[in-house]
Amino acid sequence: MTEIQVVRNVLEANDQLANDIRSEAQKYGFLLINIMSSPGSGKTTLLEKLIPELQKRGVKVAVIAGDITTSADSTRIARLNLPVVQINTDLFGGDCHLGAEVILPALHKFELKDLDLVIIENVGNLVCPAEFDTGADLNLVVISVTEGEDKPLKYPLMFRVCNNAIINKIDLLPYLKFNVDLLAENIGKINPQMDIFKCSGLTGKGLTEVVEKLCFKINQKNSA
Amino acid sequence: MTEIQVVRNVLEANDQLANDIRSEAQKYGFLLINIMSSPGSGKTTLLEKLIPELQKRGVKVAVIAGDITTSADSTRIARLNLPVVQINTDLFGGDCHLGAEVILPALHKFELKDLDLVIIENVGNLVCPAEFDTGADLNLVVISVTEGEDKPLKYPLMFRVCNNAIINKIDLLPYLKFNVDLLAENIGKINPQMDIFKCSGLTGKGLTEVVEKLCFKINQKNSA
Repeated sequence: MTEIQVVRNVLEANDQLANDIRSEAQKYGFLLINIMSSPGSGKTTLLEKLIPELQKRGVKVAVIAGDITTSADSTRIARLNLPVVQINTDLFGGDCHLGAEVILPALHKFELKDLDLVIIENVGNLVCPAEFDTGADLNLVVISVTEGEDKPLKYPLMFRVCNNAIINKIDLLPYLKFNVDLLAENIGKINPQMDIFKCSGLTGKGLTEVVEKLCFKINQKNSA
Repeated sequence: MTEIQVVRNVLEANDQLANDIRSEAQKYGFLLINIMSSPGSGKTTLLEKLIPELQKRGVKVAVIAGDITTSADSTRIARLNLPVVQINTDLFGGDCHLGAEVILPALHKFELKDLDLVIIENVGNLVCPAEFDTGADLNLVVISVTEGEDKPLKYPLMFRVCNNAIINKIDLLPYLKFNVDLLAENIGKINPQMDIFKCSGLTGKGLTEVVEKLCFKINQKNSA
């Protein structure tokens, strides 16, 4: 019983801080998105293509990059000329996710009033990050076409907490026995309301729709 | 402090049960291997190719398949005519790993005296399973060539607790900008003693060496 109580306390503390993050996003008028996926599904490469397209449209972006260790991702993202904070969870015991307790102080390193969009690139893990509310307006899962059509069924919580899915690496489809429609169908079984985007982070294919959705959400938030 | 104490208790309880598993493996003379990876790195497809090769050499194999939910993997493995136990961790709160407390009772569903090799196919997660000793003689990490060369550096604990690595999906190399040597070099930075195998679960390429290593370890254990 003690263990269950502690877990509950951790999640309750997280939820409280996630609410604080929501208040900050409301106060300063930026959209907060939380991108989650397995390791190696191509989150950083996607962002390298996506962010310049957003910047071209005048969107002021910042990124919080989470990893257990290394600053490889933030180094790549920083080349896009935008504010980046790297969170290394090995300072917090090698955590397998970003909790609200590390995101809130990371947000405070930015000039929040100058931003339209803050992107959280979560730790690569299709399980644990789904359990922790980050206060994001929008949860996005990236799944690549090399990962198998069954993943939504096997990791349902992730696909339940996300309202947007990017099926990534579609440039590899000619070389794989992979049924994209079956993957989309399996996503729909877990979450019928999911917005699904088919993209290639490498070639940029399919990203225009993602950019348009993000711009729509940013405008919606600004006019709220 | 309470939280830290509880985590310590959980890990200590796990270690005790992992020792019990080691005693069982010693008593009945089977080799226990624990296969870990990201979701979608191709563990099940690898096993579908690997197990028949082992069976041809007279190795009596059983599999414990871990997933949060679904019995997709165990259904595929069961077609190979061998004993399979599926563990669904959603019965235990959606656990992101297999702990010794679920593996020990799973082992007891087999006729252990008839087995040479028990394979644990862990939950797809490159983080948490590395933290829990399963009592296995051999920890094996699978990483596919679609996941990026940097993963050993970003998920070092997994590459530290494993003494064997399969670089999988090498059949896709012609279609990727991927440097296998750099991946192997990064694995070596984290764990210089790692045995590295380059394989394709789809074509079967490179699996002979894995089969030979496993047969060597099984013989070693039998003659101990």
